[in-house]
Amino acid sequence: RISWISDIIVVVSPENIETMKTIIEKYGHKKVTVVEGGVTRHRSIFNGLKVFAENEFSSHLLQKPEVVIIHDAVRPFVEEDIVSKVVMAAKEHGAAGAIRPLVSTVIASAADGCLDHSLERARYRASEMPQAFLFDIIYEAYQQCTDYDLDYGTECLHLALKYCKTNAKLVEETADLWKVTYKRDLYAAESIIKDNLSQQVCVITNLKETLAQVGFLLPESLKSQIKVEAISISLRKNDTRLQNIISGQCYNFVSVNEKRCAIQETQELVDMLEKSNIPLLYPVVLILVYLDISENNSFSIGMEDLTTIKKFAREAKKKNILVYGLLIQYK
Amino acid sequence: RISWISDIIVVVSPENIETMKTIIEKYGHKKVTVVEGGVTRHRSIFNGLKVFAENEFSSHLLQKPEVVIIHDAVRPFVEEDIVSKVVMAAKEHGAAGAIRPLVSTVIASAADGCLDHSLERARYRASEMPQAFLFDIIYEAYQQCTDYDLDYGTECLHLALKYCKTNAKLVEETADLWKVTYKRDLYAAESIIKDNLSQQVCVITNLKETLAQVGFLLPESLKSQIKVEAISISLRKNDTRLQNIISGQCYNFVSVNEKRCAIQETQELVDMLEKSNIPLLYPVVLILVYLDISENNSFSIGMEDLTTIKKFAREAKKKNILVYGLLIQYK
Repeated sequence: RISWISDIIVVVSPENIETMKTIIEKYGHKKVTVVEGGVTRHRSIFNGLKVFAENEFSSHLLQKPEVVIIHDAVRPFVEEDIVSKVVMAAKEHGAAGAIRPLVSTVIASAADGCLDHSLERARYRASEMPQAFLFDIIYEAYQQCTDYDLDYGTECLHLALKYCKTNAKLVEETADLWKVTYKRDLYAAESIIKDNLSQQVCVITNLKETLAQVGFLLPESLKSQIKVEAISISLRKNDTRLQNIISGQCYNFVSVNEKRCAIQETQELVDMLEKSNIPLLYPVVLILVYLDISENNSFSIGMEDLTTIKKFAREAKKKNILVYGLLIQYK
Repeated sequence: RISWISDIIVVVSPENIETMKTIIEKYGHKKVTVVEGGVTRHRSIFNGLKVFAENEFSSHLLQKPEVVIIHDAVRPFVEEDIVSKVVMAAKEHGAAGAIRPLVSTVIASAADGCLDHSLERARYRASEMPQAFLFDIIYEAYQQCTDYDLDYGTECLHLALKYCKTNAKLVEETADLWKVTYKRDLYAAESIIKDNLSQQVCVITNLKETLAQVGFLLPESLKSQIKVEAISISLRKNDTRLQNIISGQCYNFVSVNEKRCAIQETQELVDMLEKSNIPLLYPVVLILVYLDISENNSFSIGMEDLTTIKKFAREAKKKNILVYGLLIQYK
C-alpha cells in the first residue's frame, strides 16, 4: 500500500505461520517475509530485525534498511501520512514514535492495593505505534538489552534511550490509530470499515429515456448523503469511465434496468468487478433495480425470474459480490 | 436501576439543562436532581456535591449521604456489581476507585517534544469510574482544594489523598467500563447494546396443529444461537406468561400465523408491548410470519394485504416497535 516501503517482515506465532502464508498468497502480497515470533513482544521484534542482519532466519538475507518501522497488527487504520512523519523524524533523531493524549488519568498503586500517587495527565502521553528507528540504533539496542528487558519490557523507545542514548522524537497522531484490544474494538473496527466502504455509490443506467431520467434523479437525491458517480451506458464492456470508478475503490453499485432480468449485462458488470480484484478485500454491494412502468404491470413476481436472480446472486456471493434485487412498479 | 442508591445528581452544562429535564420527564426517573455544571470537571463535581450541603443549589436540601459515588455519563455500561464493590471499599477506606490495566505504555515527554522517560507499564493503572467516597472526606477535599486544582486537576482520588490523607482503595474492573471518547466508541457502544438486545427471542404461535409444529421446530433450530422462549396461545390478552417474558426485557418477538393478516391479534401484542414501557428505552422487533400451506397458494402478494401491513408497521414504528412481515409458502 505504501510504495516507498521496500520490505515487510510479519512476525507470527509458530501456530499461525501457515495461516499467514496462505493469506499472503491469497492477496498476492509481494514484499512480505514471514518470521517466527518469540514468547514476548520484544523477542518477537528482535526476531523480525534479525532478518536483516543474520542468516539463520531467512534463506536469503534481505538488504539492511536505513530506517525500520515497527508496527502492531492490532492498529489496522494507519495512514501513510503518519508513517511518513515518524520515518522522517527517525532519520533526524535516530528514533521516533507516535503518541496520543491519555484518555484516563494514570495512577500508581501501592503494594496494599491502595493509591500511591496519580500522574498529572497533561504531562504524560500514551505511546502508540508506528515507531521508526535507524536500523543500526534499534538493532544495537536489542543486542545489548538484558533478558529482563526482553521478557518484561514493552517499549522500544525505552530500549533506544537506555542502550543507545537516543531520545526518540514524539509525533502526535490522529485518533484512528488505536489498539484493537477488546471485543468492542472489533465492533468499532467493523463499523469504521463499513463507513469507509459506503462513502461512494455508482449509479448505472442505460441510455433509454425513462431510465436516463432515473439516472439523473436518483443521484441527485443521494448526493446530500454520499459521493455519487452516475454513468449512463448501453454496453458495459470496455467502458473506461466505469473501469476508473471501480479501480477508484467504489464498493457500491446501483444498476437500474427496464427488463426484469437483465442478467447478461449484470454478468458483465460482475465480471468487471471480479477482474478488478476489488471484491478480494471487502464485499462489493450491487443493487439491481428493475423499473416496471408498463401499463399492465401486476403486483406479482414471476417464480421464474425470482429463481434466476437468486441463483445469480448465489454465484456472485462466492466472489464476494453481494447482489440484491429491487422491483419497482409504477403506474 | 440500582435500588439502594437514594439520590442521583446529574451535573449538566447550562445549555443542556432543559434537554436533560425533558429526558428525565420522558423516562419517568424519580430520584434525579439536575444541577448546573462548572467550566471544568472538578468544578462540576463540586457543584454536584453542594446539593447535599448548601442551600443555594437546590430548593430543598437533600439528605447528606454516608457515601457518594462519582460516575461519568461517558461510561454507560456500569454494572451494579462494580458499583457495590467500590462503595463497600469506600466505606472501609474512605475512598475507592475502579482501575483498569494500561493498554499502551505511558511516556513523559520533554520540553523539546522528545522522549524523557517511559513508565513501567505493570506498575501503573488507568484510573476509571465509578469512584466512591465517604461524603465528608470528598466534600472536605473539594472545600480545601486550590483554584489550580479545580481548573487543571482531573483526579478525585488525588484530592482525597492530598487534602484528607486518604489513600483510596483501588478496585479492578471489567473491560466494559471504558470511556466513550471517540466516534469509534459510539460504534462500539451501539454494537454492545444491539448484542444485549438480541440475547433472547420469544416465538408465539397459536394452538392449531400445523402452527404448533412450527412453534416447536423454530425454537429448536434457534436454540443453539439465542435464548428462546416459545409460547403457544390462542388469545394473547391477559396471558401471564407472555407478560412475564415482556417484562423480563425481551426485545425480539416472532409471531407465526396462518392467516395472512392477523392484524387484530398483532394489535393486541403491540398494545401489550406499549403498555410494558419496554419500547421506551430500545426498539422492539416484531416479525410476523404468515405461513401459507394451502394447496392452491400462488406466488403472489395481494396488494391489499401489503398495504394493510405497511400501514400497521408505520403506526407501530411511532411506538418504537419495528414490525416486519414474512410470507412463507410451502407446498
